[in-house]
Amino acid sequence: MTDFESTICAPATATGGAIALIRVSGKDALNCVESIFKPASLGASPLASASGYTMRYGTIVSGEETVDEVVVAIFRAPNSYTGEDCVEISCHGSAYIVSRILDLLVSSGARMAEPGEFTRRAFLAGKMDLAQAEAVADVIAAESQAQHRVALNQLRGGYSAELQTIRDRLLELASLLELELDFSEEEVEFADRSRLRNLLEEAESHCNALADSFRIGNAIRNGVPVAIVGAPNSGKSTLLNALLRDDRAIVSDIPGTTRDTVEETCVIDGVLFRFIDTAGIREASDEVERLGIERTYKKISEARIVLGLLDGTLSPSLFDAESASIATKIPEHAELILLANKSDIAGSNRSGCLSISAKTGEGLDKLRSILVEKAGIPSSEGTLVTNARHASALRSAAKSLSAVISGLDSGISGDLLSEDLRDALRHLGTITGEITTDEILGEIFGRFCIGK
Amino acid sequence: MTDFESTICAPATATGGAIALIRVSGKDALNCVESIFKPASLGASPLASASGYTMRYGTIVSGEETVDEVVVAIFRAPNSYTGEDCVEISCHGSAYIVSRILDLLVSSGARMAEPGEFTRRAFLAGKMDLAQAEAVADVIAAESQAQHRVALNQLRGGYSAELQTIRDRLLELASLLELELDFSEEEVEFADRSRLRNLLEEAESHCNALADSFRIGNAIRNGVPVAIVGAPNSGKSTLLNALLRDDRAIVSDIPGTTRDTVEETCVIDGVLFRFIDTAGIREASDEVERLGIERTYKKISEARIVLGLLDGTLSPSLFDAESASIATKIPEHAELILLANKSDIAGSNRSGCLSISAKTGEGLDKLRSILVEKAGIPSSEGTLVTNARHASALRSAAKSLSAVISGLDSGISGDLLSEDLRDALRHLGTITGEITTDEILGEIFGRFCIGK
Repeated sequence: MTDFESTICAPATATGGAIALIRVSGKDALNCVESIFKPASLGASPLASASGYTMRYGTIVSGEETVDEVVVAIFRAPNSYTGEDCVEISCHGSAYIVSRILDLLVSSGARMAEPGEFTRRAFLAGKMDLAQAEAVADVIAAESQAQHRVALNQLRGGYSAELQTIRDRLLELASLLELELDFSEEEVEFADRSRLRNLLEEAESHCNALADSFRIGNAIRNGVPVAIVGAPNSGKSTLLNALLRDDRAIVSDIPGTTRDTVEETCVIDGVLFRFIDTAGIREASDEVERLGIERTYKKISEARIVLGLLDGTLSPSLFDAESASIATKIPEHAELILLANKSDIAGSNRSGCLSISAKTGEGLDKLRSILVEKAGIPSSEGTLVTNARHASALRSAAKSLSAVISGLDSGISGDLLSEDLRDALRHLGTITGEITTDEILGEIFGRFCIGK
Repeated sequence: MTDFESTICAPATATGGAIALIRVSGKDALNCVESIFKPASLGASPLASASGYTMRYGTIVSGEETVDEVVVAIFRAPNSYTGEDCVEISCHGSAYIVSRILDLLVSSGARMAEPGEFTRRAFLAGKMDLAQAEAVADVIAAESQAQHRVALNQLRGGYSAELQTIRDRLLELASLLELELDFSEEEVEFADRSRLRNLLEEAESHCNALADSFRIGNAIRNGVPVAIVGAPNSGKSTLLNALLRDDRAIVSDIPGTTRDTVEETCVIDGVLFRFIDTAGIREASDEVERLGIERTYKKISEARIVLGLLDGTLSPSLFDAESASIATKIPEHAELILLANKSDIAGSNRSGCLSISAKTGEGLDKLRSILVEKAGIPSSEGTLVTNARHASALRSAAKSLSAVISGLDSGISGDLLSEDLRDALRHLGTITGEITTDEILGEIFGRFCIGK
């Protein structure tokens, strides 16, 4: 689907506000809108001759009928989001009016845009590379400061620039190898092999470092997974609610953000946490429930932090037994934070535990700062990979580079080395979209919302 | 609250779209945005010197940090929605970004707008009268073609113009009366009393006719109330679901539109119907349920159309008994449509009834066209009052005019007549806002959404 011929339209804002925006893009965008737009000032020149970055006030009409009073914003190719001629119609925020105007646009020759089609066109027109285009959806979905910072850095090309430095390095290596190939019959090694090897190792470790950053990048993008485990009545639900309470307002309800029902998210100190609610785990009475519990266990196994919640009012021996039982449930690589709950009744006398009261809120600020600390989200810059597709491409590139290095060590011929090097370049190219297929594009942009 | 000094800001779009709009209005709007905006082109002139109806591309910044890439649209006083300098910031549709930008605007000296404050400023600046301002909220909430047509006519001043003709007529009468007053000591009747009487009667009946139109206007604005009554098992829920099914997609879920839980709306042929679900009526087992049932009965009494649903498979004698029982439940002024359900089993052999099958959909198209016909919504123009406040003001004006007429008949003095006439003018003035109070304005604009 690389249909650049058609002019596309879609609502760009959600239903329910004072104002709604409708986007139109394509070579006929201006004519399309012109045919249903009546400027307020009689002597106004046609839209088709309007300059970019200007607006007009008027009405959308259907024959004699006035549909709405609107402001029409004009963007001329290539200075628009998509790189094409674009018009944004700003109308009253009524679902009825939006659907009427879209109907009129379709009658005038536009077609409804596919999800992500505006951004796809921006990519295909060279307005942004693929990594930047993917960041658009992340910027929109960002709920926390850290998510936003990483997504915006990617959108603004910071990430692409870093990939470019790796590519430049590899291209330099490739030309050194080509040089060697050209002269290979003369048995001359022009390229300094040890220098070559150093450069390759640098590039390989750079790729691996970026791929490694996915662990943190993913935690930022999707939230740091935290499981609260503990015996019934230890106060898991109360603790979860207490942690969520203050931050609830920040958690937006963006349609299309699918979120597992057993999870709740909240932002603490700019970091998004994803709490896995294990309160529902009990003896399963039927198959459906059993599957739900299985899914919850799987979620717990993905937790990076486990809050082990103990009832502080238990006798020392029961408390220790419970504590030992929790220790067996901790997934590998996860950090355990042991909490002695009900400090409002029991006091704070358990060693090795943070004493809290989920009920009164005592100790929760301390818990929040420990959570942020254990999350280990760097507050400063540095590129982070947030996308599984990118992480996998970077691993593949590193693997190809590793093959080049082994080849170099075992003295295989330069043209075979070149092939592995080209593989590495190809893998990196899939990230920014120098190398891509319709299938990959469909996969990526199909996940966007309409109007973006 | 007529604080014109401050610059106000608010989100103008709902959370969840690709794009979000933030509105800023007031004499410092341009400076306010300027202090957080970095234009993409380096040599760009300051926003403060930008022409109206132009846009700039750039970034919103907080110190060194980039918050988002935005397009900033500039409107210069008085050519803006509020009549003041206005800026609309178009950013990525992220709740996080919107709240960040609003925070920055507030730090730069703007304050968050109250609900309806933009439109209130537009009214106070004389950009629209009160009836037009009230129509803004109706235009946004419109779900059906008829709602939209009536609201847009009011917004565009059609309704205000009609009120103006009545006011002009009354002002003419007032001047005739004044003339008489000036010469009253000479016992001369300059004003032709019978002509005066005719003009008064015309104005009175015009006011009454407009007030009467509220019955239809209200049905258009809030939906034509339809009750479905019938014995248990007659198929009420199935019928309701069948009627709603096709139109469900059109019914939008605009936040803030409060809708009674016992009601469902759907649009048939451009007319909004409000179905009162009586399926829940049964013997109340507790107080809460009893109150719910009472509320449902009250709703039924407001129905303009009653669908009397009978089970077509009943024996003729039971059918007739049931039919008679329904007849006793019809509120005054409501139209009854008798339906014989289950025609797929029973066939169509009941006279005086429309045979339908809620299950197979048989007869439902016929039912829909009868509903639209009985709703009696005029498809053409003609001013309709949709607002209870207006209807009541029109009734009061008509009453004052009636007092003038009686006074004229009983020969009371011209200055007393003048007083009643001024009362009538005052009542009409409250509709368009020539005469108003802060309290009325607070009442009206407080119901608006934020950002409008």
